[in-house]
Amino acid sequence: MSQTLVLFSGGIDSTTALSWAKARGESIAALTFDYGQRHRLEVRMARRICRRLGVPQHILKVDLGQIGGSSLTDPDVPLLKYRDLGKIGDGPPATYVPFRNGIFLSLAAAWAEAHGGCKIVCGFNIIDSPDYPDTRRAFVRAMERAINQGTRAVWSGKKIRILAPFVDMKKSEIIKTGLRLGVDYSYSISCYNGEETPCGGCTACLLRKKAWEEADSRDHLLVRLEKEGKR
Amino acid sequence: MSQTLVLFSGGIDSTTALSWAKARGESIAALTFDYGQRHRLEVRMARRICRRLGVPQHILKVDLGQIGGSSLTDPDVPLLKYRDLGKIGDGPPATYVPFRNGIFLSLAAAWAEAHGGCKIVCGFNIIDSPDYPDTRRAFVRAMERAINQGTRAVWSGKKIRILAPFVDMKKSEIIKTGLRLGVDYSYSISCYNGEETPCGGCTACLLRKKAWEEADSRDHLLVRLEKEGKR
Repeated sequence: MSQTLVLFSGGIDSTTALSWAKARGESIAALTFDYGQRHRLEVRMARRICRRLGVPQHILKVDLGQIGGSSLTDPDVPLLKYRDLGKIGDGPPATYVPFRNGIFLSLAAAWAEAHGGCKIVCGFNIIDSPDYPDTRRAFVRAMERAINQGTRAVWSGKKIRILAPFVDMKKSEIIKTGLRLGVDYSYSISCYNGEETPCGGCTACLLRKKAWEEADSRDHLLVRLEKEGKR
Repeated sequence: MSQTLVLFSGGIDSTTALSWAKARGESIAALTFDYGQRHRLEVRMARRICRRLGVPQHILKVDLGQIGGSSLTDPDVPLLKYRDLGKIGDGPPATYVPFRNGIFLSLAAAWAEAHGGCKIVCGFNIIDSPDYPDTRRAFVRAMERAINQGTRAVWSGKKIRILAPFVDMKKSEIIKTGLRLGVDYSYSISCYNGEETPCGGCTACLLRKKAWEEADSRDHLLVRLEKEGKR
């Protein structure tokens, strides 16, 4: 068993990563984290996407609300609003969840070790969100080394690789890549407010809107919601 | 706030690490993981030790039973028995929990980032348990790098250090170090069977017994249990 695990939140990036890995003909499974996120609806939507694609999915619970320090896991920390966007450049925004990707990659490595897995694919990217430390190429490489030093891999020689194929892409390029792969983004949600119909004002919504415009396409989610009279 | 976080299970190694950090005059807090371990009693005992020492403690839940692959988190995997000890050298034993220390260090890093913390102290050691990949110095260094690449530390310059002061010590030397520091091990438990009175047959009990003999002292836990008529 040497399957490829895809970190899968159901957002634009990981939905593209899932299809990217599938297109490589690998035996894949999705790992979705139910981490106490404000927009927990993404877990249900992610399950839906996996079912539609016939991809086995494992949902792991880890309550990062115990740690807090982020507007996504602590209801007392307000969400970043459009008017705060100018603050970007001063360090991670309020929506940054402390070392979230380190925790997710550690749990994925444990899963790989327990159930067989040689690759972990993630949709991390940095161009449009440069203030997140845990989506950078240097972090991914450092985490890969740590995983291969702290698991059986150190002796077996069967290294676990972390692939972040979109790390240097803009979100619009990720969407274009997905469209070329035939990805259906109708059930992929991004909004931090946790509703299927995007609020349009949070940073996740704004980034997504800009990316679809730059990709010169219409957001599949909006098209579906309009068809269903939900928007 | 730049406190020192101690990974604290309440076993011999981390109990010594807690007092080692305290003796350095640092502002410390203990992080204890309730991870679905078979010997969950250790969480309660760890709380007791912290209360006695007046050390603030934070208990974080992360159910590693979701991942399994270890006799400590999966009731279907039998505990290693004395007669299986000869198997050591063939890779991690059944009691190895896949990438557990990677997961714990990731959660500790997140805690440090959210609440202020510049050092993480752990009682990892390798001499008596050479078949655990995630207690080795090379792993600790790699994990430290990953944490400093994946948190605010990458920009702030305020690095998070991981200290593993006992990494090259035998367990008997760790006990001797603790005894010099005045550590009381009466409530420190090791047995994997999850009872206060040690079974005497699991690898944890055997290692502990050997270490106290080598340290030429009587195990404080046994002394207390005898006094209380529990043994």
